[in-house]
Amino acid sequence: MSITFDRIAIIGLGLIGSSLARAIRKAGIAKSIVAIDGDEAVRTRVAELGLADQVTGEPAGVAGADLVILCVPVRANAAVAAAIAPHLAPGAIVSDVGSVKGSVVRDVAPFIPEGVHFVPAHPVAGTEHSGPDAGFAELFVNRWSILTPPPDAASDAVARVRAFWEAIGSNVEVMTPEHHDLVLAITSHVPHLIAYNIVGTAADMEKVTQGEVIKFSAGGFRDFTRIAASDPTMWRDVFLTNKEAVLEMLGRFSEDLLALQRMIRWGDGDALHALFTRTRAIRRGIIASGQETAAPNFGRQPDPLPKPEGGN
Amino acid sequence: MSITFDRIAIIGLGLIGSSLARAIRKAGIAKSIVAIDGDEAVRTRVAELGLADQVTGEPAGVAGADLVILCVPVRANAAVAAAIAPHLAPGAIVSDVGSVKGSVVRDVAPFIPEGVHFVPAHPVAGTEHSGPDAGFAELFVNRWSILTPPPDAASDAVARVRAFWEAIGSNVEVMTPEHHDLVLAITSHVPHLIAYNIVGTAADMEKVTQGEVIKFSAGGFRDFTRIAASDPTMWRDVFLTNKEAVLEMLGRFSEDLLALQRMIRWGDGDALHALFTRTRAIRRGIIASGQETAAPNFGRQPDPLPKPEGGN
Repeated sequence: MSITFDRIAIIGLGLIGSSLARAIRKAGIAKSIVAIDGDEAVRTRVAELGLADQVTGEPAGVAGADLVILCVPVRANAAVAAAIAPHLAPGAIVSDVGSVKGSVVRDVAPFIPEGVHFVPAHPVAGTEHSGPDAGFAELFVNRWSILTPPPDAASDAVARVRAFWEAIGSNVEVMTPEHHDLVLAITSHVPHLIAYNIVGTAADMEKVTQGEVIKFSAGGFRDFTRIAASDPTMWRDVFLTNKEAVLEMLGRFSEDLLALQRMIRWGDGDALHALFTRTRAIRRGIIASGQETAAPNFGRQPDPLPKPEGGN
Repeated sequence: MSITFDRIAIIGLGLIGSSLARAIRKAGIAKSIVAIDGDEAVRTRVAELGLADQVTGEPAGVAGADLVILCVPVRANAAVAAAIAPHLAPGAIVSDVGSVKGSVVRDVAPFIPEGVHFVPAHPVAGTEHSGPDAGFAELFVNRWSILTPPPDAASDAVARVRAFWEAIGSNVEVMTPEHHDLVLAITSHVPHLIAYNIVGTAADMEKVTQGEVIKFSAGGFRDFTRIAASDPTMWRDVFLTNKEAVLEMLGRFSEDLLALQRMIRWGDGDALHALFTRTRAIRRGIIASGQETAAPNFGRQPDPLPKPEGGN
């Protein structure tokens, strides 16, 4: 299905918003793109990068857009929705890219005027980098985008949002906001939380210096630092808005970790070996599904990394 | 310092042992290499790959070697040391590559004959793949190898082991076994444990299917599956032999995680934001030190990954 929009408004030109602008351009699916951002420095950079046909800080920039995509931290959605509501064109579709969907439905839906469609979405894609320079058109290729339309959403609007994501290379799945928030709690939110946590724990050692943590990070630790370098505001909002599902999954994680701790304390090698064998299968599944590279170390080797300055 | 050995014996031709064989060849620092492995399938493969000048299953293969490197799971070291001891040449150096050093000193030192040097080592390098096919010569380039010589070790033997690691591209640091085990507990062992654990937790959901975990793994989860695909026997042995340090670090991790959980429950956004900001600095340090790539997503994007079979 080929799709075209007259005017797509992107609100918030961070990693995701600026990647969308680039992907939309590359796919040629909008006659014009308007970039809306409250931050003057971001607007200047977006203009310099030529990411949009129009760049503005005004919510009225959504006027005339047939697709409006909110790309702001999830707790900012309500204020943005309130600001743009008076300017939305009849028949327009409002969507978003938030990592939590229950709260988006709760916060944004009340502001959507009669005759405007609301189809929340979440592209499960990203990098640890932030801001308009970090985006790239291929970010969504072969990733999954999840739509969580309300039960009474117009099927035509849902189909257009689906076609939009497919046009920029994404696979699409539809589910309820509640199920989305549960799935993402275990596949994304809790992994981020424990990555932030181990990096914090490592930074707070007295007997192990920060220099040692850095030097010997290739033993496994460095993998965790990638997602622990993600945008702090975005992630703060994720944990505050998906509280119930995160606490539920965290409870399970901690329960399982205590069981592992007990196996270590009592020397139950067989149980450890059984778990460590089982977990290999999941990675094989992720690689087979095209969501991960099979190259060792994520493919970052054997390209030799640069020698450290002052190294011996 | 240029260094050459007459005959290097490698015992255990897995990822590390086979990488060492390749690196030694590439650096041209041994007149001959003997590969010793108890597994016939491994021996056959090592011979096919041409990794050594001699391939044997016999401990007597160490005869005449001036450097003998144990590359077996750490709990196998004692039996290997006992088996090779009668065949060790006077003046030979015995080393190893184990991820735990306290236990190696405890298990191996008693078997080392008078006149043979024992200089334990640990290259902090690896991939999630196992076996002789997984090795490559560049594995140790720009990584750190840690030596934990006993206080009475001959300085010449220590210097030769240092020169060995440097000759194959590694940086070298010397510390006590106790400090090594503490440093590695936080930079490697606990990260592996929580990676294994989150993958296990995700596999055990009732309301979220394994297919969903795999599909939406790009949200962060997939990063953890890499190290959770590491060799089960090696890692079982690590946790059983570095029990005290792992339990100590795990206690800190869990304590910190409980504090985070409480911040989420009570909506303390400022505290979350402060931690998430602090953790970014550590990654910057790791990148600046040359232990990690600055490319987003470990550099695995924007190379588009293959489309899933049967994807829509």
